[in-house]
Amino acid sequence: MRHFEEELDELRKRLLEMSGLVEAAIYRSVQALVEKDEALAHQVFKNEARVNQMEIEIDEMAVRLLALEQPVASDLRFITSAIKINNDLERMGDNAVSIAERALSLMHEPPVQAAVDIPYMSSLVESMVRKALDSFVKKDGDLARSVLLGDDAVDDRRTEIYEELVRYMQKDPSSIPQCVSLISVARFLERIADHATNIAEDVLFLVDGVDVRHHAEAKT
Amino acid sequence: MRHFEEELDELRKRLLEMSGLVEAAIYRSVQALVEKDEALAHQVFKNEARVNQMEIEIDEMAVRLLALEQPVASDLRFITSAIKINNDLERMGDNAVSIAERALSLMHEPPVQAAVDIPYMSSLVESMVRKALDSFVKKDGDLARSVLLGDDAVDDRRTEIYEELVRYMQKDPSSIPQCVSLISVARFLERIADHATNIAEDVLFLVDGVDVRHHAEAKT
Repeated sequence: MRHFEEELDELRKRLLEMSGLVEAAIYRSVQALVEKDEALAHQVFKNEARVNQMEIEIDEMAVRLLALEQPVASDLRFITSAIKINNDLERMGDNAVSIAERALSLMHEPPVQAAVDIPYMSSLVESMVRKALDSFVKKDGDLARSVLLGDDAVDDRRTEIYEELVRYMQKDPSSIPQCVSLISVARFLERIADHATNIAEDVLFLVDGVDVRHHAEAKT
Repeated sequence: MRHFEEELDELRKRLLEMSGLVEAAIYRSVQALVEKDEALAHQVFKNEARVNQMEIEIDEMAVRLLALEQPVASDLRFITSAIKINNDLERMGDNAVSIAERALSLMHEPPVQAAVDIPYMSSLVESMVRKALDSFVKKDGDLARSVLLGDDAVDDRRTEIYEELVRYMQKDPSSIPQCVSLISVARFLERIADHATNIAEDVLFLVDGVDVRHHAEAKT
């Protein structure tokens, strides 16, 4: 069996790889929506099978490391954090699938002419995911803190999109099903941002030993 | 230090206690909505602080057991499952808070006269949560499987509620903000059911050694 440090490094690499898949899924799901690109939505579904498989493998790997190496102190915390982060990534993937499903259901509907900038919101969210994982592998507390700040910007975008779509529906009730789907998409993106925030909070605990979970529970 | 078996038993008890708090939060958040009871919504917010504190304590307890006892095989799996289940319970609590927030925002709005049975959906969800935790502490595979079946019933209710509310909004566009909030409530309940399903899947892995995660990914 390989040296413990190499095993930990492998665990880090697998999580980064999984994060890459999830970021691609988020981007593609939103592109599928905006470009009405059915093939892209199906790529997200196909990709999801790999993400799910990776979740199981990373989970097994982490538990095996706990069993065989019986790590203590910071290594133990690192591995239990990896188990949680793995779970957060998989759920982000689920949310990207939900967005791709909405993209398909909207594919043949007339477009909504509301001024909602879902691609911009998505770009903020993708950046949070990337930074959260980087902060974990680099054990970088400042980077993790920047993720927490990003969450507020995402919440603001979600509120704007919601309000714009409610106004639009009231003007044009025939657009209600499409607008409700777009509100859902904004909420899925917000949930992905929440998972990135969870990861950043785990990182801060790992790095600083300070528990910042539940630092601001006023979110919806 | 106490005997390892006693420590595991304590971990089980704490998770059951936390589950009790979360079930109460779900019930109260829906009652706050239905009965327009502001005090009940505030109880949910207050309760959430306890749930958050318990999450941190249970997490610390599980990591301490891993570090001090260095368990192997089924005990190791039990403790890593406890870490995940703890996380699922806390997120259910977050969803109950989101429902209570919607209850507050709807408190002074005219009621929606659509035939949506959110209390019934909520009772299905509460029962899933109860069964999922019981299946964990009793290591009961059959009970865990019944939770997976319950998830489909919850999804069906969510779809019915969604369709009814879209029809209602189209008839009465002035009700759009309230109806969108009620659609959100149904989605929060569905997410709680998803967390209960995650727990049941963990239990089946623990009991049967079969990984049933991602058994049916077609959900939205």
